[in-house]
Amino acid sequence: MRIAVIGFGTVSKSLLKVLAEKSKLILNAYGVEIKTVAVFKRDGAFINNNGLDLERIVNSQNYRNEVDWVNSADFNKLAGELNCDCAVELTPTNVETSEPGLSHIKTALEQNMDVVTANKGPLALYYPELMDLANQVKKRILFEATVAGAIPIFNLVRNTLRANKIISVKGILNGTTNYILSRMTSEKLPFKIVLKEAQKLGFAEADPSYDVDGIDAAAKLVILSNALLKQECRFKDVNRQGIKDITPEAIELARKDGFLIKHLATNENGVLEVAPRLVEVDSSFAVNGSLNVVKLQTDLAKDLTLIGRGAGGVETASSVLNDIIEIAILRR
Amino acid sequence: MRIAVIGFGTVSKSLLKVLAEKSKLILNAYGVEIKTVAVFKRDGAFINNNGLDLERIVNSQNYRNEVDWVNSADFNKLAGELNCDCAVELTPTNVETSEPGLSHIKTALEQNMDVVTANKGPLALYYPELMDLANQVKKRILFEATVAGAIPIFNLVRNTLRANKIISVKGILNGTTNYILSRMTSEKLPFKIVLKEAQKLGFAEADPSYDVDGIDAAAKLVILSNALLKQECRFKDVNRQGIKDITPEAIELARKDGFLIKHLATNENGVLEVAPRLVEVDSSFAVNGSLNVVKLQTDLAKDLTLIGRGAGGVETASSVLNDIIEIAILRR
Repeated sequence: MRIAVIGFGTVSKSLLKVLAEKSKLILNAYGVEIKTVAVFKRDGAFINNNGLDLERIVNSQNYRNEVDWVNSADFNKLAGELNCDCAVELTPTNVETSEPGLSHIKTALEQNMDVVTANKGPLALYYPELMDLANQVKKRILFEATVAGAIPIFNLVRNTLRANKIISVKGILNGTTNYILSRMTSEKLPFKIVLKEAQKLGFAEADPSYDVDGIDAAAKLVILSNALLKQECRFKDVNRQGIKDITPEAIELARKDGFLIKHLATNENGVLEVAPRLVEVDSSFAVNGSLNVVKLQTDLAKDLTLIGRGAGGVETASSVLNDIIEIAILRR
Repeated sequence: MRIAVIGFGTVSKSLLKVLAEKSKLILNAYGVEIKTVAVFKRDGAFINNNGLDLERIVNSQNYRNEVDWVNSADFNKLAGELNCDCAVELTPTNVETSEPGLSHIKTALEQNMDVVTANKGPLALYYPELMDLANQVKKRILFEATVAGAIPIFNLVRNTLRANKIISVKGILNGTTNYILSRMTSEKLPFKIVLKEAQKLGFAEADPSYDVDGIDAAAKLVILSNALLKQECRFKDVNRQGIKDITPEAIELARKDGFLIKHLATNENGVLEVAPRLVEVDSSFAVNGSLNVVKLQTDLAKDLTLIGRGAGGVETASSVLNDIIEIAILRR
């Protein structure tokens, strides 16, 4: 299967490294060959019709001098000429316009490619439209990496809970806020101090609102709700409250009664909410650090909880790679 | 797809009920029709070449008078005549001889059927041989329900962690011992008293050794190790220690230092062990009641933990049903 990778950030580089390392294993285990023929950056692309040397690209010190580099190459313009089966969209999330991811995904579908993406923006804003478009052209959009990093929640439901009805979903979907609340709890420090610490350590962005106001978690909840609960909904449908106003005093008060304060994303009875909530200290949501948790309520398997890494290059690449292999198997 | 169900206990009856309720949904969602043509009990079988009325069988007050009942019918003798695609082996586990499950599975494979089973015995004793036999006749054995009930651990690795290497596995695999240890911890009661209480409530058998001596957990660990870690091993390879000697004093002592005592099944560096172990009170193994936990360490997704129901008719049937649908999809 011929793939084009769009985006060249942490997840993309991790994916390319893993593809370089594991392509033989994948061929032996699944009988599919994944050939990367294009990798798009902001200012151009590496393109080789016979398959790129991925290790070389990832380690290149001066990419503009690489033999396969094409200056100013743009996916939307070149997609028709690449002869690719699958586009892997890994550009940064934007929950206002969802660009450039939205255009890339539409272009890919129109050019007869399946799509794998880790980009939350397009699905948080246009899930129903994009799935309709994919159905029209009989292509797939897989998006395991958009929610909870390495936790394979969509694949879990699709491939291991067949015939189960998903009744509700509840999760800690943002590692940064979980890290901040965990530190506020263990160190009894106020929000602002812990946020600064997280920013110094690289766990939080200079503009932290995306995480601490629950924007990121809300985008993920929308995707979970559309995909698992079959509820057509959008980013604007989420009741959203951040963690800025949580005080160490409130945390201490909760703790005295056996509770922790966690930033939960929930869809119960069709109501989408991201907000600070009390959880019992021995509940499965009582996880510390930057871990993510997703708990499903189902009709047959009943409650099922998954805990794992919500971020990280190679962890997220694991989910992207599983989607790529699934598409390759289905196209065999 | 035509299936024969062998065994008529709690899981079997739950499966038949769910099949009766969800067959249309399954047909619409996956394009496969699951037709149950035989259900074997100890003293005979319900057989109908056009498909059994499952609701009627499950609710029958006097099964020997049912029109489809065949006295003394035996799967091993009749398998060749059933024209079945898949045998669903749900007889009770026996870790000494693994019969009658072993013979049923062998017969099914020899008669060109795929196999789905919830029976731990055959796989705990003969995993390598049974997989060899299945490979020879180009059939599959799926066994999701053998370990951790509703937690879809084997399907998870097979279908959602593709290209990941599983490095180690660690779990609470027996709900009865977890219930007993949880009660000993919360009520500060000795093992014998809590065991009696569990027996009265139906959570523990009259002969509790299968659970409290770790036999059940060891059988499950062997299946996990063969399937996920690709380590050829058998029941006798497990270092096994039960929970009979745990005292409330030991639990209290651990608790003072921030630990709980849990009965863990572990395969780390190829060493299989079932034994009481200390876990931190905020670890993902600190689950109470009869819940099961499985934690995988992998190379790409890193640590992934699943928490769910380890037993229960419909919960276990969920795993059996997913396997049946998977085989039906693969045979399409």
